[in-house]
Amino acid sequence: MKISHANRGMGLEQDIDLTNSYYLDMNKAVIYKKPTPIQIVKVNYALKKIVDAYFKIPSTTDYNGIYKGYYIDFDAKETTSKTSFPLANIHKHQIKHLTLCHNHGGIAFIIVRFSKINETYYLSISDLVSYTNSNNTKSIPLSYFKEKGHLIKDKYQPRVDYLNIVDIYIRRMYEEKN
Amino acid sequence: MKISHANRGMGLEQDIDLTNSYYLDMNKAVIYKKPTPIQIVKVNYALKKIVDAYFKIPSTTDYNGIYKGYYIDFDAKETTSKTSFPLANIHKHQIKHLTLCHNHGGIAFIIVRFSKINETYYLSISDLVSYTNSNNTKSIPLSYFKEKGHLIKDKYQPRVDYLNIVDIYIRRMYEEKN
Repeated sequence: MKISHANRGMGLEQDIDLTNSYYLDMNKAVIYKKPTPIQIVKVNYALKKIVDAYFKIPSTTDYNGIYKGYYIDFDAKETTSKTSFPLANIHKHQIKHLTLCHNHGGIAFIIVRFSKINETYYLSISDLVSYTNSNNTKSIPLSYFKEKGHLIKDKYQPRVDYLNIVDIYIRRMYEEKN
Repeated sequence: MKISHANRGMGLEQDIDLTNSYYLDMNKAVIYKKPTPIQIVKVNYALKKIVDAYFKIPSTTDYNGIYKGYYIDFDAKETTSKTSFPLANIHKHQIKHLTLCHNHGGIAFIIVRFSKINETYYLSISDLVSYTNSNNTKSIPLSYFKEKGHLIKDKYQPRVDYLNIVDIYIRRMYEEKN
């Protein structure tokens, strides 16, 4: 059946974009990918075209928005490693940004896809930081994602149903308050 | 005194960027301007340069982030009119986006500067929509901003202290809940 495999190998980013569109259509959440930050050097105004520009390092993460009144902030990364997530994939200032969002009452996390084994995990920024703080390491092993993170099961729609996991953290925040 | 006038005539966008940096430095809020959305047509990979691209119409607003656990979303506009804010300045899908953010429990608004009279107002998306729904109009008069909006007084630091006004709405939301 060719059709059922049509979406295989689609990138994580595209999967998340489709997921966010689905959430928006269902009026479940309002979450968008931010545009890629670009430094514009020269514009041809007559042609309304940018003719010289370059990519900037992002100061924040790729995705943010609102769900059930909560501020949501995350980044999504893919790795071809079968055993660990290399921390070189994520900028230090992105970790700092996610930590700040968490401290201000938001729900902040990363989504990591181990593409070779086709497993996608949710890891809260607190669990990420608690690992990197207590381990002098350049990567986070898959076993840690299995232990502290949450597997996001592949679905047809939405493809990467991460709000399912966010619900767990909303429940925890609610219980801590009450 | 030249120094005291040094910042006069600085654009609203730059004022808000400085304000957001100040909020971040003070650990008061985490609010950023989103990058300008650009459609990239051609990249020169050898030179790591974008050589052909064009501006896209933004699907959302320019600013969002988190403050006191609340999702914040707004756009900032300047007008040279002394009497009214032309609605042509704001896209319909931006109004829709802000309405959605409000419906999901966020704090959504626009900041409008009447640059000729040097007055900057905060207007909640609800008040904006309630005006446009009951008036067949292409602009919102300054008098409506004075009546339903909130004047944001010029300050040295932060320059456009809009979170001061956000606090009013947080208080209202809290009172409605309790």
